Amino acid sequence: MKTFGFIGLGLMGGSLAKAVRRFSRTAADNKAASCEAPLCETVPTAVRANRIFACDANEDVLNKALAEKVIDKAFTPPGADEMLSACDIVFICLYPVAAADFLIRHENAFKSGAVVTDISGVKKEAAKRFFGFTRKDIFFVSGHPMAGSEKEGYEHSSADICLGRNYILIENAATDASSIALLSDIIRAMGFKRIIRTDEETHDRKIAFTSQLCHVIASALVDSAEDSAITAFGGGSYEDLTRIAMINAPLWTQLFFENRENLLAHIGRFERSLENIRALLEGGKTEELCAVLETVREKRIAMNALK
Amino acid sequence: MKTFGFIGLGLMGGSLAKAVRRFSRTAADNKAASCEAPLCETVPTAVRANRIFACDANEDVLNKALAEKVIDKAFTPPGADEMLSACDIVFICLYPVAAADFLIRHENAFKSGAVVTDISGVKKEAAKRFFGFTRKDIFFVSGHPMAGSEKEGYEHSSADICLGRNYILIENAATDASSIALLSDIIRAMGFKRIIRTDEETHDRKIAFTSQLCHVIASALVDSAEDSAITAFGGGSYEDLTRIAMINAPLWTQLFFENRENLLAHIGRFERSLENIRALLEGGKTEELCAVLETVREKRIAMNALK
Repeated sequence: MKTFGFIGLGLMGGSLAKAVRRFSRTAADNKAASCEAPLCETVPTAVRANRIFACDANEDVLNKALAEKVIDKAFTPPGADEMLSACDIVFICLYPVAAADFLIRHENAFKSGAVVTDISGVKKEAAKRFFGFTRKDIFFVSGHPMAGSEKEGYEHSSADICLGRNYILIENAATDASSIALLSDIIRAMGFKRIIRTDEETHDRKIAFTSQLCHVIASALVDSAEDSAITAFGGGSYEDLTRIAMINAPLWTQLFFENRENLLAHIGRFERSLENIRALLEGGKTEELCAVLETVREKRIAMNALK
Repeated sequence: MKTFGFIGLGLMGGSLAKAVRRFSRTAADNKAASCEAPLCETVPTAVRANRIFACDANEDVLNKALAEKVIDKAFTPPGADEMLSACDIVFICLYPVAAADFLIRHENAFKSGAVVTDISGVKKEAAKRFFGFTRKDIFFVSGHPMAGSEKEGYEHSSADICLGRNYILIENAATDASSIALLSDIIRAMGFKRIIRTDEETHDRKIAFTSQLCHVIASALVDSAEDSAITAFGGGSYEDLTRIAMINAPLWTQLFFENRENLLAHIGRFERSLENIRALLEGGKTEELCAVLETVREKRIAMNALK
C-alpha cells in the first residue's frame, strides 16, 4: 500500500484526495469509522493508500480535510519537503505555471522511485518548464482529469466529480511504462471511465477546442446579455451554455494564454462556422440553413454514440 | 371540470397532455387504474380535465396515447372540427406557421367560450397571422412553455419536462383577463414554476437571445469540430454546450427565420463580445482579459440568484 501526497487541496486536489480515500477504504475501516461509504473491494492493494498527506497554504482547508478524515496528515508549504520525502505517489494540484515551478523548486525532496503527476489543463508550455527537472529516479507523468465544477475550492470538492469522466495522460519517449500503468490503475479506481494517452501537442489542440473554446464562448454569451434578468426568459439552454462562465478568472486567464495559438485557431474556425449560419439567415437561404442544421444534428448524435 | 384538446401530440403536445392528465387524476382514478401517479389534490376542480382529446396525423402516436390513458379519445385531422366543437381548452402544439394556419382554417369549429392557446417559440409574426381570426366568443392567449428536449416526438414526451420551468404568456389590449387567469392556473398545475406575462415584441427579443442564439452557437460549435471523435477529450463543457445541437432542423429553421431581425442583432452583439476576448488574447492583454472574465463571472452568478 502506498503513501499518497496532494500538493494543493482545492476543488481538484480535494476531489482526487476524496476519491483516493474512497477506493482505499476497507470493510474494517468503514466499520471503525461507523461509515457506510462505498467500498471498492476490486481495487488491488498495491494501488490503495494507507496514508494520504496534503500540503496547502490554507490551514482551514487542511483542518477540514483532517476532520473529514480525507487526509491523515497536513503540511503547510514550509513542510512540503518533509511530506514529499514520505510519498510514493504525488498529485500536484496547482495552477499550471505554479505546478511546474513547484516541481523544479522541490526536485531534491522527492522520495526516490516516487511517481509524480500534475493536473494542468495545458501541457506543451508546461512540458518546456519540466525540462529543468533532472532527477532520473523520479517518474513524472503529466495528467489531465477532464472533470471539474464551476464552483471553486476544497469546500466544493467531491469524489463524485470523477465518476464516468475522461482522464488524459501524456505519453512520450521519456514516459516510464510501469508508472503510467500504476497511475492508470489509480485513475480507474477513482471512478474515471476512459483514459486517453496522447502527446502534449495533441492534448493542447483538442483541449483548446473542447474546454477552452467553450469557456470563451460561454463568457462571451454572458458578456453580450443585455441584463442579468434575462434568465426569467430562459428555458434551460442559456443556463446550460453559460454555467461554466462562473469562471475562476485567474486560472482560466492562465490556461487561455498558455494555449493561446491553439485557442485562437479554434476561435477563428468557430467564428467562420457562426458567420456561415449568420449569412444564410441574413440571405434568406432557408433550405441551405436547414441542411446545415441537419448535418450538425447528425454530427452531434455521432458524438453521443462514442460515449 | 373541463374537456381539454391537444392539436398535435409531439414532444410538447404529449408532455403537456401528460401533465394535464397527472394533475387531473383523483384518488379514485388512481385506484381504478392501479396507478400510483402523484396526485395534485390542491388543484381546483375547475381547472382539471375530465376528458382529454387529441388530434394528430400519426395514428401510432394516437394509439399509444390511448393505450397509456394519456388521452380519452383520438382524432385524425379530418376529425379536428368534431373534436374542437367539444373542447373547453385547446392547446395548439404545432410548428409556428402551422399553428396560425390551423387556427384560421378551423375558426368556425371552436366551441363558443373556448380558451385557445399555442406554444410557438416566436410571437410577433404569428400575431400578424392571428389577425385573420374574427370570432369574438373564442379567447385566444398565445403562450410559450420554456421547456423541451433535444429528443423529438411523443415517444420522448414527459410531464416532468414542465417541472420548475418558465412559461411565457402574451398579454395585450385584446387579452381576456379571465382566460389568462384560467390558463395560469393550468400552467401552475402542470408544474411550471414561473409565469411571465409580456408582449410579443419583448418575448421575441428576449427569446432570440436565451433560446435561438444558443441554438445557433451550439450548432456552430458542432460545425467547427474537426471530427466526431473530439468528445474523447471532453470534460462535460463541450457536451453541455452542444446538447441542443441535436436539433429539429425544420422547426428551428422556421423559428430562426420567423425571428430573424432579433436573432441577427443578438448574433452581432455576441460576435462583438467574442471578438473583444479574442483581441485581448491575441494582444497579450492578460490583466484586461482577467478583468473581463471576473465581470462575466459576477454577471452569471447574479443570474443564478434570480432563479
